[in-house]
Amino acid sequence: MNGPVKQENNREENFIKWYEVPSKEQAIAISGRLRLARNLRGFPFENRMSNDQKLALSAKIAETMKSEEFEALGLKNMGFEKMEAYSRGALVEQHLVSPEFAQNGRYSALFSTADNSLSVMANEEDHIRIQALLPGIELEKGLEAVNAADNIFDAKLAYAFDEKLGFLTECPTNLGTGLRASVMLHLPMLESSGVLPRISGNISKLGLTIRGTYGEGTKAKGSFYQISNQVTLGISEENAVKNLKAMVSQIIFQERALRDGIKGRSLEDKICRAYGILTNARLLSGDELMETLSLIRLGLDCRYISDISYVTLNRLAFTMGGANISAVAGRELSGDERDFMRAKAVRETLLNAGGN
Amino acid sequence: MNGPVKQENNREENFIKWYEVPSKEQAIAISGRLRLARNLRGFPFENRMSNDQKLALSAKIAETMKSEEFEALGLKNMGFEKMEAYSRGALVEQHLVSPEFAQNGRYSALFSTADNSLSVMANEEDHIRIQALLPGIELEKGLEAVNAADNIFDAKLAYAFDEKLGFLTECPTNLGTGLRASVMLHLPMLESSGVLPRISGNISKLGLTIRGTYGEGTKAKGSFYQISNQVTLGISEENAVKNLKAMVSQIIFQERALRDGIKGRSLEDKICRAYGILTNARLLSGDELMETLSLIRLGLDCRYISDISYVTLNRLAFTMGGANISAVAGRELSGDERDFMRAKAVRETLLNAGGN
Repeated sequence: MNGPVKQENNREENFIKWYEVPSKEQAIAISGRLRLARNLRGFPFENRMSNDQKLALSAKIAETMKSEEFEALGLKNMGFEKMEAYSRGALVEQHLVSPEFAQNGRYSALFSTADNSLSVMANEEDHIRIQALLPGIELEKGLEAVNAADNIFDAKLAYAFDEKLGFLTECPTNLGTGLRASVMLHLPMLESSGVLPRISGNISKLGLTIRGTYGEGTKAKGSFYQISNQVTLGISEENAVKNLKAMVSQIIFQERALRDGIKGRSLEDKICRAYGILTNARLLSGDELMETLSLIRLGLDCRYISDISYVTLNRLAFTMGGANISAVAGRELSGDERDFMRAKAVRETLLNAGGN
Repeated sequence: MNGPVKQENNREENFIKWYEVPSKEQAIAISGRLRLARNLRGFPFENRMSNDQKLALSAKIAETMKSEEFEALGLKNMGFEKMEAYSRGALVEQHLVSPEFAQNGRYSALFSTADNSLSVMANEEDHIRIQALLPGIELEKGLEAVNAADNIFDAKLAYAFDEKLGFLTECPTNLGTGLRASVMLHLPMLESSGVLPRISGNISKLGLTIRGTYGEGTKAKGSFYQISNQVTLGISEENAVKNLKAMVSQIIFQERALRDGIKGRSLEDKICRAYGILTNARLLSGDELMETLSLIRLGLDCRYISDISYVTLNRLAFTMGGANISAVAGRELSGDERDFMRAKAVRETLLNAGGN
């Protein structure tokens, strides 16, 4: 149990987030995510609950979490329901919560470790969602973390559970284990070589899916793709995670094979120009940041760029969205202001991290 | 006589070129050029001469220039007729000779000071062309320099001269004084504000013309424009230079007025990105270099860029053409090799000059 999740819980005071920890396969594997969907007996599903019922449920879950066991996991109430819109948006950009959950913030509750590696949401699509986030592909550690929280809830609350169907969930695609596991990969070479559609077809036969960062069908911004399990019935949590990890390892292997073949002046030029933009631009949109960070990440792996760590790139990718910039400023910023402050923060981060 | 031309003649050993000397109005005025067209009695005009006649004329002029007076001016035979094509091309890129003159190199001769501020061409469009190049707008000093060489020739050779028409020249547009004076200006703001066509119309009434770096009608690469006199009959050399300089000063004033009004984040962003490209690109075309240098030059004037001198920008503008890069390498390079070596040289020059 020396994995990133546990490690991070000991570092609360430093505000180091889960994505700021070096990990295996970090050149290609950005992050992993494990999520359990749970519902309680005696409450209707979310889509049939009034706001008052939601508040009552939130209060019940919050009360339940005021316990030694949850405190031992480092889970604390984040005061999500009182946050400004941009602060909730900042958590969306950090992949901690979904946009829908952020929008319904007033009737929700969020509990998290300081590093956000483990979190619990009340009134998400299901009554309770338990989530682990981790750098790289060490999904087993994430599964341990969500299971730990799940066991505590199970001892204290009555889950909606059916002997045949397993855990009951609002959306039938989550029935059974209620487990969704995913890994975000950086796949610029598989993308540009055009083989992703074939890979997508193959893995769907194995109950897995691949999609762009911002939803199915869209081209991934910066070549970041999410691979996740689709099947939650008739397969154990451990096997689901094992299957996903095996497929992810294969995809990483394929991406790496392509990378070994593409080095050259033209690519180096493209990557170094991206570095030039990031260290000099005075206005930088979120989209341009993702595209250029994608090139820098590839450049780091190809050794065209040095003196920058993957941790630095992760920090930029997770904390330079518009809501995060606004949250740092403490007010809702205009688009121009955001682009200006984003450029400044990125520039200073990279120049302090060292040149290329 | 402390002007750039004379100064430079004392610095031969350093190989400092005329464009590497700071000058008045250097933010906008890149360079000035004075040229006298002269022909000798007893020889047909160039377009009617055989190659043998050209060689005889070259030899006669070279012989004439072996004298204390010409040596005192620092003029030396450059061995132009024996140069490699890329070395002659390098001199075209440095604006010392015309492309046509470089092409007919075998039957021509070139005499120059070490800094190229004063030069004499044999078998150009006319038998003799005397040329002064200088940074900024100190045209009077250039006129003094070409007059000094002209007087020596006049005492030693018989010029084709007519009491009514003045100096006889192959092209009638040069008849009279045989003087062409021009100034190269950097006019990004007048260009982008769309007023150049109006200025062009106005100055043509005064016997002046404005055109892009690479010929009339073309959009100037990097917003560099050449303003020159068109009238050589019925006007003294001194007045022609005075008129040109007065008009150039007015145009500089207009460009500056526009610059004062345009500062802002968007321009700063554009300029700083150009700096990022120049200090990071691994492949850089000549055209892209001119466009980005144009922005850096504007950025220096607007104080968005510091620690780079106009002299450094001049050096890059005059010595990073494809032929110059080949000349440094000592062989004809491919386009990719040139772009690679250009990027390297520009990067190292700017990074050694200091950051922004």
